[in-house]
Amino acid sequence: MSEDAGPAEVTGSPALLREINCAKVFTALRGGPAQRLTELSARTGLSRPTVAQAVTQLVEGGWAEYAEETGAGETAAGRPRIGRPARLVRFRGRAGYVLGIDIGPHKILAVLADLTGDVVAKRRRDDHFAGSGEEVLTAVRQTITDLLNTARVRREDVWSVAVGTPGIVEERTGAVRMAPSLPGWHRIRLTGALGRSLRCPVHVENDVNLAVLAERWRGVAVGVHTVVFVQWGARIGAGLIIGDRLHRGAGGMAGEIGYLSVFGEADIDSDAAGLGPLERLVGAAAISSAAGSPPGPAAPRVDRRPEELDAAAVFAAARDGDAAAAAAVDTVAQRLARGLSALLLLLDPDMVVLGGGVSAAGEPLLAAIRRHLCPLTLTEPVLALSSLGDEATALGAVRTALSDVERRLLPRATPIPDVP
Amino acid sequence: MSEDAGPAEVTGSPALLREINCAKVFTALRGGPAQRLTELSARTGLSRPTVAQAVTQLVEGGWAEYAEETGAGETAAGRPRIGRPARLVRFRGRAGYVLGIDIGPHKILAVLADLTGDVVAKRRRDDHFAGSGEEVLTAVRQTITDLLNTARVRREDVWSVAVGTPGIVEERTGAVRMAPSLPGWHRIRLTGALGRSLRCPVHVENDVNLAVLAERWRGVAVGVHTVVFVQWGARIGAGLIIGDRLHRGAGGMAGEIGYLSVFGEADIDSDAAGLGPLERLVGAAAISSAAGSPPGPAAPRVDRRPEELDAAAVFAAARDGDAAAAAAVDTVAQRLARGLSALLLLLDPDMVVLGGGVSAAGEPLLAAIRRHLCPLTLTEPVLALSSLGDEATALGAVRTALSDVERRLLPRATPIPDVP
Repeated sequence: MSEDAGPAEVTGSPALLREINCAKVFTALRGGPAQRLTELSARTGLSRPTVAQAVTQLVEGGWAEYAEETGAGETAAGRPRIGRPARLVRFRGRAGYVLGIDIGPHKILAVLADLTGDVVAKRRRDDHFAGSGEEVLTAVRQTITDLLNTARVRREDVWSVAVGTPGIVEERTGAVRMAPSLPGWHRIRLTGALGRSLRCPVHVENDVNLAVLAERWRGVAVGVHTVVFVQWGARIGAGLIIGDRLHRGAGGMAGEIGYLSVFGEADIDSDAAGLGPLERLVGAAAISSAAGSPPGPAAPRVDRRPEELDAAAVFAAARDGDAAAAAAVDTVAQRLARGLSALLLLLDPDMVVLGGGVSAAGEPLLAAIRRHLCPLTLTEPVLALSSLGDEATALGAVRTALSDVERRLLPRATPIPDVP
Repeated sequence: MSEDAGPAEVTGSPALLREINCAKVFTALRGGPAQRLTELSARTGLSRPTVAQAVTQLVEGGWAEYAEETGAGETAAGRPRIGRPARLVRFRGRAGYVLGIDIGPHKILAVLADLTGDVVAKRRRDDHFAGSGEEVLTAVRQTITDLLNTARVRREDVWSVAVGTPGIVEERTGAVRMAPSLPGWHRIRLTGALGRSLRCPVHVENDVNLAVLAERWRGVAVGVHTVVFVQWGARIGAGLIIGDRLHRGAGGMAGEIGYLSVFGEADIDSDAAGLGPLERLVGAAAISSAAGSPPGPAAPRVDRRPEELDAAAVFAAARDGDAAAAAAVDTVAQRLARGLSALLLLLDPDMVVLGGGVSAAGEPLLAAIRRHLCPLTLTEPVLALSSLGDEATALGAVRTALSDVERRLLPRATPIPDVP
């Protein structure tokens, strides 16, 4: 086939049918209140016996439970009802939990959610992790313990965990390459290291990939088919959802836009701190440098937060009418537009979402970028600011852990739609 | 779900099951010789009654036919067999035909294929179409008539047609925007204009999109998940298959790499002939210009073939030891590497295929590009030369027409794997 050229591995079997229908009932239950079988039948378009079969399967798996109609003894019209109250089925959102964790050089954020994806509790730890990988790992473990204690959730009730980290993640082991902001981090095998204490599957994913999943789940890009999330802080990178699917690339290295050479700059590895050409031009350090001294390709500092604070001061000064600061913001917007134009021309996405510390400068920055993009692209792109802020990665991790749980319940069914 | 976030629209039903299983039998029949039901059952892993049901459906639809075993009366071991010869089923590859047509500023190429995708006949017309859209359309109609006459195939036996054209194609009408190499072409509604004389569905698609489909079907990129096809001639553009699916972009404008500004050049619309910044630097005209006079962003000619011939002369001179020509080839390779680095950093594809007239320069050009790419990317990319040459677009059109036919037979089944 021209558009979906993957091999047809699925064989049509009654078991597959049951899974597809079970997924439909699952979706209808999770998205709604306690319901009668007849209501579920109407919502899903499936026959009552098919719905009953799926409900039995879900109840046996611990996902749903039976309940009795409240206001029993009366019909909707208020008249006394003859016989027993109708039996209802409801989703057991708190039958289990998932954990989403964002590990960065300056913070650990752990989010606990139930099976409907509702956030139950969060725990955040701000720190600067410049030491060993073990030090970070200890802090992550402590954060998880504190979070579960606060929420009074038992460790064994956590069904799945997903972790976001900078760098390139090796899928099988959770080992991380190319994360210079977390020294020593490459020696940690996250999947095993966290799996031992948690006893449930642990998925590790690049932080920006999780951020784009979150924006599409509950952020500004809900329902958008092709969306690029640009994480803009001391460094710059992109997460790509193309045609509804996360695109990681052959070596897990898609979206490395920090290494773009948009003005024919020097080679990508000429910077001692590991910053790429575009990062050196638009990263947080370059913004403060543009406001003071003339910007150059060399701005070799890697510690993140101080520069972001400096950059925020430049944006604040520009808002207050400081001409030099305003010129610096415009310069940086122009440079970022060069980088964005490459991804717009190549992918023609439905939306580009700007996130990360620098994007906190908000609409004025966005307007400047739009203006500079105009002569560089063929169409007017849809640019939006992240609505999830610095919780995007942790929420994307929650979404990923939920997906893992769903896949284990219904491995062969068509994907289950997102909880709204 | 994290990776496949599309809604689950499919409801499990016996009809869906039948389609999935029918698709499996379809694939086994198309890929093989006449077979017994027991053989089909073994190849598909389906039960004999299920196979028999699917075969009945395919025979009724005209896709397959029954036959008697040849060498009847003897078993494989050569001994006389008791009773009737076994009944075989075979795919009716010539039950219908599909047409793939490539319409360019300098040629029309029409390819007729049977239902297994085997090419039955081709017809090529070389010409320079600088006049009205109607003139091109008349030439296309004549080429189709000649092709069908030569192949002795009746017009009504053509089940589907796909057409490749430069420019941005509007999906519903087949109207083409942004195709400066075919003046007047934007006034033609191809779907309707060709559909009237052919009386079967006509699909119109961008030529480079079809080329990447063809390379993945029967070219150098068979089975590759994410592949970028770079069409390099007087102009330059890319077709993208990302995660096994053609990616067209929000406005059908994905892959417009000719407009990349890799050296911080002027705005994209500063060229009278409509060439983008990268096209002005690496297009066929720039190659001959680099060999003679110093190259600049302005090389405003749009007629395609003469420049490609000039470019070929430069490559030939470089091979023969001409120092100026060799330097020009190296310069152009370096510039293209800048453009390619953007798509490699952003997409991290499994493979990049170079096609188009300039790519005919072959391995020496590829080696130069690889050398210049090395310091610009994070991993060593897989670069390959197109193996389909200037038939790639027409073959991709054949593949698209076949997909249309398959979708009409089995609209809800999982995609049917490509014919090998």
